[in-house]
Amino acid sequence: MIDSQKAVSIMKSYKKLKQKFTKIYHLRHLYNIAGWDQAAMMPAGGNEARAHALTELNGVIHQLVTSVEIANLIDAASNENLSQKDIAVLREYKRCYGLYNALPVELLQKKAMAGFKCEHAWRTQRKSNDWAGFEKNFIPVLELTRQEAKIKGEYNQLSPYDAMIDTYEPGMRQNHLDEIFTAIKKWLPQLIKQVVSQQNKQSVITPQGPFAVAKQQVLAKEIMGILGFDFNHGRLDISTHPFCGGVSEDVRITTRYFEDDFFKALMGVIHETGHACYEQGLPRDTVMLPVGQPRSYGIHESQSLLFEMQIGRSESFLTLIAPLLAKTFGEQSAFSAQNIINYCTRVKPGLIRVDADELTYPLHIILRYEIEQALIAGDAEAADIPDMWNEKMRQYFDLDTSGNFSDGPMQDCHWTDGSFGYFPSYSLGAMNAAQQFASLQEYHPNVQKEIAVGNLDQVHAWLKQNIWSQGSLYLTDDLMQQATGEKLNPQFFKQYLEKKYLK
Amino acid sequence: MIDSQKAVSIMKSYKKLKQKFTKIYHLRHLYNIAGWDQAAMMPAGGNEARAHALTELNGVIHQLVTSVEIANLIDAASNENLSQKDIAVLREYKRCYGLYNALPVELLQKKAMAGFKCEHAWRTQRKSNDWAGFEKNFIPVLELTRQEAKIKGEYNQLSPYDAMIDTYEPGMRQNHLDEIFTAIKKWLPQLIKQVVSQQNKQSVITPQGPFAVAKQQVLAKEIMGILGFDFNHGRLDISTHPFCGGVSEDVRITTRYFEDDFFKALMGVIHETGHACYEQGLPRDTVMLPVGQPRSYGIHESQSLLFEMQIGRSESFLTLIAPLLAKTFGEQSAFSAQNIINYCTRVKPGLIRVDADELTYPLHIILRYEIEQALIAGDAEAADIPDMWNEKMRQYFDLDTSGNFSDGPMQDCHWTDGSFGYFPSYSLGAMNAAQQFASLQEYHPNVQKEIAVGNLDQVHAWLKQNIWSQGSLYLTDDLMQQATGEKLNPQFFKQYLEKKYLK
Repeated sequence: MIDSQKAVSIMKSYKKLKQKFTKIYHLRHLYNIAGWDQAAMMPAGGNEARAHALTELNGVIHQLVTSVEIANLIDAASNENLSQKDIAVLREYKRCYGLYNALPVELLQKKAMAGFKCEHAWRTQRKSNDWAGFEKNFIPVLELTRQEAKIKGEYNQLSPYDAMIDTYEPGMRQNHLDEIFTAIKKWLPQLIKQVVSQQNKQSVITPQGPFAVAKQQVLAKEIMGILGFDFNHGRLDISTHPFCGGVSEDVRITTRYFEDDFFKALMGVIHETGHACYEQGLPRDTVMLPVGQPRSYGIHESQSLLFEMQIGRSESFLTLIAPLLAKTFGEQSAFSAQNIINYCTRVKPGLIRVDADELTYPLHIILRYEIEQALIAGDAEAADIPDMWNEKMRQYFDLDTSGNFSDGPMQDCHWTDGSFGYFPSYSLGAMNAAQQFASLQEYHPNVQKEIAVGNLDQVHAWLKQNIWSQGSLYLTDDLMQQATGEKLNPQFFKQYLEKKYLK
Repeated sequence: MIDSQKAVSIMKSYKKLKQKFTKIYHLRHLYNIAGWDQAAMMPAGGNEARAHALTELNGVIHQLVTSVEIANLIDAASNENLSQKDIAVLREYKRCYGLYNALPVELLQKKAMAGFKCEHAWRTQRKSNDWAGFEKNFIPVLELTRQEAKIKGEYNQLSPYDAMIDTYEPGMRQNHLDEIFTAIKKWLPQLIKQVVSQQNKQSVITPQGPFAVAKQQVLAKEIMGILGFDFNHGRLDISTHPFCGGVSEDVRITTRYFEDDFFKALMGVIHETGHACYEQGLPRDTVMLPVGQPRSYGIHESQSLLFEMQIGRSESFLTLIAPLLAKTFGEQSAFSAQNIINYCTRVKPGLIRVDADELTYPLHIILRYEIEQALIAGDAEAADIPDMWNEKMRQYFDLDTSGNFSDGPMQDCHWTDGSFGYFPSYSLGAMNAAQQFASLQEYHPNVQKEIAVGNLDQVHAWLKQNIWSQGSLYLTDDLMQQATGEKLNPQFFKQYLEKKYLK
């Protein structure tokens, strides 16, 4: 027999939690929009005031999430009978509460300060290849991150590095990543060699600029339109580092333009449009609650990579847009569909992660993953990074980075502010994307033909139903299981790459 | 003998107030930027989420300002010995607290809802000249504003209409406005007739478009540069209704462009640049406190009008920019300096306030002032407005607006959301501007020559010292007294107009 007194009291707690988190959602809206503005619109002189404003709002939000009232409401609701969906909603309230509560505010502030200092100096130190200067600022960031990882681990009953991974990939563990990456390392280097050797026989013509920025912008918006970006709920603008920001109801993506190479902006826009469609497709009825938010960084990245790799760099799509390139920039022989396909699927081992193709990219991630777990475990120190880096670059790519810190361990911003545990999400995204697209293709066997004529309805329908509208209702494994019939299975990634790159 | 125990406790209260209001300032920063974004950047589909977000932040700010803690701190500090400056700082804390506390939250919410409804419907009702529809929504706005005025009046020991005026013009009273406007009504209509009659003998060539928006934008930024707008702390963008938003450290002004008439955008930009320079010139050390904020709407408007009228429409400035017009849009005979001067100082009585020249403008204000005081006093009802309007338009301009509600009482947005008491600030601004510029000219006798060569250093130096950097340290009368040697004296306005317009 249901205890009706209790049931009433549950619904009260449950409803109150919804109110509380909705309020937090509304305040985060302003944080996100002001953050986008800071990167895309704000004049430099506004930065200090903006930093204060964002810090203050962050404090207000932090106080709201970590309030005793929320803790009590979560406790009250946890002890009651709830529907399956309610349980998931509550699970995500708890996760959100935990993310904010695991760490003492003083540690958060110290780490933020150290990270800000390190990141700020890094911008110039990278240019001057100043490892010694960087290391000095980085040591405290590393030390504070170790403390963070330890405390988070204790809070969540996880090892320190697992606790860091869990921030970005709830449920993912180092054991599992080791297994995945060990497998990849067995077949990927060989595949890269084969592909490079094959491609060496291909001729590729590089499109010749200059490509006027205004024309690139028109093209970018046209292609966003084809990809189904909803301009009634979003914008495209310019910022130094491309990103997808804003809020689900008003998604702000950015890019930067180079006059000598339009592909950088274009592929960046396609990538960010994938992130944007995920945000725009989140469940309308719960988007203001943690359960209606994107599942994880790896799932988010799967959407951007599916748009960029499975669609944007596919033969179908590149055949579709080749005439648009000629229309936009004028005819040139480089704009034949076959040349564009060859150009956009070129594989070349290199020093820089963000410039890497999809075959060499995972090795860049594995390298970072291996180094950062050693750093968090205390098995390596900041001073050891350059040698470890160089050794692994030799091993994976046969490339030398000794003494070249700028294009070595100083190339990324992630570690400068202590975002350890983030890198694996990129490759999880690539693997999730391959697996999702395989399912999509099975469900819609003629999807490639539809893409080739600019119709992405099937892509949108499948992703909307299986990924976007699910938000965080399921844990990642269950989301992938429901969407594709099985949990993450890196074999799909292998098959996808072999089919696409081995001719 | 100073009670040192007490002194310590004062400084505690005083410092705590500073902390509290600084926090509020930081949060308002985000409110302002998101408000600007809403008007200048946001896609339509983002509006609902934005409205929720702004409402939520407004609630947080309201709660902070009206907290018992602030009330207690103000009380504690009020009873102690403070320096002259501290007293002014505290006076403005009290004013800010009073503005938020005078009204019950329920009334504020009711009025906001009624105002939102009325304003929203008005946008279409104005186009269809639908007075009956408008009146229906306007009646509750008027009723709620009367309640507001009554409660505010009781709180501040003022008459209801005085309480409304005081919101925008602290210290200004209806008695004083009556005196000022009665005097103006004695000489202005006659002056207008004289000027119109003189100008009828002048020939004026209207510049011929189209004027490409991109060219207008370049010109606008060039002229903002001449006027001393600091682009490191601000931007120019586009919105339906021009405004000056953002924050002191990052001022966002907007305009809208018409291809057939570039002067609308240009003069709008000059006007908003005046507002912007005031914001950018506020005292750096106290800008985050109420005492460091702009003194009043009438002082704010004096800066925009001084830039637009005393500078922008002066012979010196128009002679300076005439060649720029030809450079930007190509030569045409209309771009001779003399023609541009004639064109920009043309006086013509008309129906629309926002299109009015500076001679006829005050009569538009007086008309609204007379009607709104009758409305708040209960001497007139919503249904009486059209006849009152028509009667006064006949009296002041010899123009008929009977049956033409769109270009009559439905032309402005101010009453739709119950902003009664606001209109007088426009004309106070015009009078303050004339008086300030007279002093500036006395202090820098060759300022016109400097303006004619594009050097606004003297203008900036005088305004920065006497107005901008003063924030709200002085009450308006004292501010004007210190800046110009006397309180507001409308004679300066009369002299300025006569000198400029009577040839």
